[in-house]
Amino acid sequence: MNSFSRTARAHANIALIKYWGKRYIPLNLPAVGSISLTLEALTTTTTVAFRPDLAADSLFLNDIQANDKQSKRVFEFLDRIRDLANISHFATVHSENNFPTGAGLASSASGFAALAVAAAGAAKLDLSNSKLSELARLGSGSAARSIFGGFVEMHLGAKKDGSDAVATQIENKDYWPLELLILITSTEHKKIGSTEGMNRTAETSPYYQQWVDTGPKDMRAMKDAISRKDFSYLGELTEYSCLKMHALAMAANPGIIYWNPLTMRLIETVRELRAGGLEAYFTIDAGPQVKVICKPENSEQLRAKLREIPGIKSILHTRLGGPAKLLDS
Amino acid sequence: MNSFSRTARAHANIALIKYWGKRYIPLNLPAVGSISLTLEALTTTTTVAFRPDLAADSLFLNDIQANDKQSKRVFEFLDRIRDLANISHFATVHSENNFPTGAGLASSASGFAALAVAAAGAAKLDLSNSKLSELARLGSGSAARSIFGGFVEMHLGAKKDGSDAVATQIENKDYWPLELLILITSTEHKKIGSTEGMNRTAETSPYYQQWVDTGPKDMRAMKDAISRKDFSYLGELTEYSCLKMHALAMAANPGIIYWNPLTMRLIETVRELRAGGLEAYFTIDAGPQVKVICKPENSEQLRAKLREIPGIKSILHTRLGGPAKLLDS
Repeated sequence: MNSFSRTARAHANIALIKYWGKRYIPLNLPAVGSISLTLEALTTTTTVAFRPDLAADSLFLNDIQANDKQSKRVFEFLDRIRDLANISHFATVHSENNFPTGAGLASSASGFAALAVAAAGAAKLDLSNSKLSELARLGSGSAARSIFGGFVEMHLGAKKDGSDAVATQIENKDYWPLELLILITSTEHKKIGSTEGMNRTAETSPYYQQWVDTGPKDMRAMKDAISRKDFSYLGELTEYSCLKMHALAMAANPGIIYWNPLTMRLIETVRELRAGGLEAYFTIDAGPQVKVICKPENSEQLRAKLREIPGIKSILHTRLGGPAKLLDS
Repeated sequence: MNSFSRTARAHANIALIKYWGKRYIPLNLPAVGSISLTLEALTTTTTVAFRPDLAADSLFLNDIQANDKQSKRVFEFLDRIRDLANISHFATVHSENNFPTGAGLASSASGFAALAVAAAGAAKLDLSNSKLSELARLGSGSAARSIFGGFVEMHLGAKKDGSDAVATQIENKDYWPLELLILITSTEHKKIGSTEGMNRTAETSPYYQQWVDTGPKDMRAMKDAISRKDFSYLGELTEYSCLKMHALAMAANPGIIYWNPLTMRLIETVRELRAGGLEAYFTIDAGPQVKVICKPENSEQLRAKLREIPGIKSILHTRLGGPAKLLDS
């Protein structure tokens, strides 16, 4: 191992209380707080090597050279690490997702969390988790949460420099063994990325101010549900926050719709199964995939019911995952 | 013909700028104004007969005796007519829709408009259109618009007694020959009626106040689009208002979703066809059906494209319709 090369792995996360909208775009400061679950089965593994013999940075995603837009975001991230470590070497970055990218499965969350940990490690920086979370946020807002495992809160923060807009762990992954089924309805790249969608929403949705103003109440309620391990309450709040976010975006002009017909079918199905006694709740991010939250004792029955629905590409089944970490230390 | 019996016909209407929410429930006073198109092909035909030999009111919908809830609403309506006409006879009411009821095709709009005209006629009341619109509104908010043909504005009004919360005609049906395709995606009765949906929305949706506050701006914009016959502008405003209304309801708690997977598919398809040069715009009411607005020269091509989509029960094709009127005068 080259002493300037390190590999880290981070898990994707799924927000129960959704993040949508930025209060300060240059620093990726969120307009609302959020609460997420870190997911064991969805990972990004990233190797960063700072080398004196390189004439430029390079980025490979799943072994393919990344495009200019993706590269620019990562190279700017490396600049911050170089500034902190006071080094000038260029780097090669190799990043692998074990799940489809760009389809609403939060690849940027695990991606920038893994990058933060690997790049900081390669640059021999000894950073706190809070600082790693802040750095990850600068790459992607939701990545700040993937630094931690289990139940995670992303704080709104109040400081201008963003140093308190970081995530903290609410509880670790063993606190409450919830499970998730992730139903892939489409593997196409999403049409409107999160950043573009958030910005259009903030500029044109008539509901944006109410979304921002009512965020703290939803955060308090979800923390209460987690502290009491009240699954029904957690589930209802999760669906409420999901629909509230998609409604917000849908009311933008032109309206932003991330769902496809199968997404709609799965929303109906989860509600029907629940009405029939099989307790589960859906949530959906900026894409058409549907994530279903359940208790461990119901996950197999639920999976059997959901796999009957025609058109589903695949179902991922996961429990909660741990924090981002270096693999080679 | 019994001299106390009259028959009237009214057309359904489709709101371009949506009505959702009541500012005063007992008088059905709307929280926002709305703008609609009256539709030729969808009609309710209603006969009201006040007779001295009856011991009670009775209501038949498509020749079947109506249930208690439906009957109560109609009999209370008859009470208002009896009060105005100073008569005490009970009545039989026979009402026929030429389209599926209760599935988001606004059967209550044409229904109460036809009832208002027929009952007033049977009671020998000589009422202005404005007064008929006010009466129709007491039965169903959107019925106030079906008194008129063509392009119709429902006024918010300001008076406590609701006498200015009535519709007026903006332009008649020959002003601008727009056409509509109504795509029936389901003939099941909708799960949440408009009134229940509106009330839950007003009580629980975090976006309700913004919906109410921004209504007047949408009204002004649509009147501008109509006055300039700017089809693209009319269409964009129509989709915006539709998504804004559904977003509002979706953010209620529990979230109200009127769409099914085919509704979603049709939204996508209309947007794709438009991107491909076939100009058309969707709108959706409190149910899963999709209404597509187009120019006459595009309606056949559009219909041919849309009928290819699997699962559609039927397609109704209509131009704009005229006012509610007595058939036997």
